[in-house]
Amino acid sequence: VSSIFTQIINRKIPAHIVHENDFCIAFMDIMPIKKGHVLVVPKLEVDYIFDLPLDVYQELFHFARQVSNSIKKVFKCNRVGLSIIGFEVPHCHIHLVPMNKIEDMNFNLKHATTNSELVKVANEISLNINI
Amino acid sequence: VSSIFTQIINRKIPAHIVHENDFCIAFMDIMPIKKGHVLVVPKLEVDYIFDLPLDVYQELFHFARQVSNSIKKVFKCNRVGLSIIGFEVPHCHIHLVPMNKIEDMNFNLKHATTNSELVKVANEISLNINI
Repeated sequence: VSSIFTQIINRKIPAHIVHENDFCIAFMDIMPIKKGHVLVVPKLEVDYIFDLPLDVYQELFHFARQVSNSIKKVFKCNRVGLSIIGFEVPHCHIHLVPMNKIEDMNFNLKHATTNSELVKVANEISLNINI
Repeated sequence: VSSIFTQIINRKIPAHIVHENDFCIAFMDIMPIKKGHVLVVPKLEVDYIFDLPLDVYQELFHFARQVSNSIKKVFKCNRVGLSIIGFEVPHCHIHLVPMNKIEDMNFNLKHATTNSELVKVANEISLNINI
C-alpha cells in the first residue's frame, strides 16, 4: 500500500499543495504546530531521509529552501525552522515552521486551523515561490 | 567578533570535533539533548541557513548525511533526527540527534554528560565516518 504522502502525490487524497516539481512536493500540514507549517516530501517513497539517493536528497533540500523563502516572505517571521523526525508516516518528510522564538518549534503544540485558513495560506505561499 | 563556532573552527576554543572538510565542521554539542547529539556547522559564518550560498548549503547537507550515517552506526538507533532552529548562536547549525522515539527530539530535555563521555563518543563517530 502506498503511503499517505504518495496518495497525495498521486491525487488520490486531497491536500493543500503549495509547490511541486518532478522530484518533490510541498503541502500544508493539516495538524500544524504553527500557522504556515509546511511538509516537504520527495516523490520517491523512502522511509528514512538518509537512505534517499544523493541526487534526490540534494534536490529535496534545494526545493525546501525555495519553499522556506516563500514562507518567510508571507509570514514576515524571524526565520523558518526545519525538522526531520520520522516515526509517524513511513515516507520521509521535512517540517518547515515559521518561527519568531525557539519555542515555536514544539511538536506538542497544535495550532487550531480550518480548511479555509489552509487554502488561503497555501495560496499565499504558492504565489511567493521564486524558483 | 567571531561567533563561538568560528572560534571553534579556528581552534581558539576547544571542541570535540568529529569530522571536518574545507566547508564544514561537526562537533559534539556540549549541552546534548541526547547522548550522541552533534552540531554540523558551515565554516562560512552566516546566521540564517537559507542565506548560505547554494553550493555551501548543498555541501552542508551532504556533510550532515555522512555524519548522520556514522551516528546511526555507533548508536544503533532507529534513526538520526535533524533540526535547524537558530536564535541562540548567530551562526547557522544543524542539530543531529540519535532517536528511538519521537520524544527524543526535545530541546527542553538535557542529557547529563561529562568531558570523558564526549571525548569517547566523538572518537567513535569520527572512526565510523565513510566519505
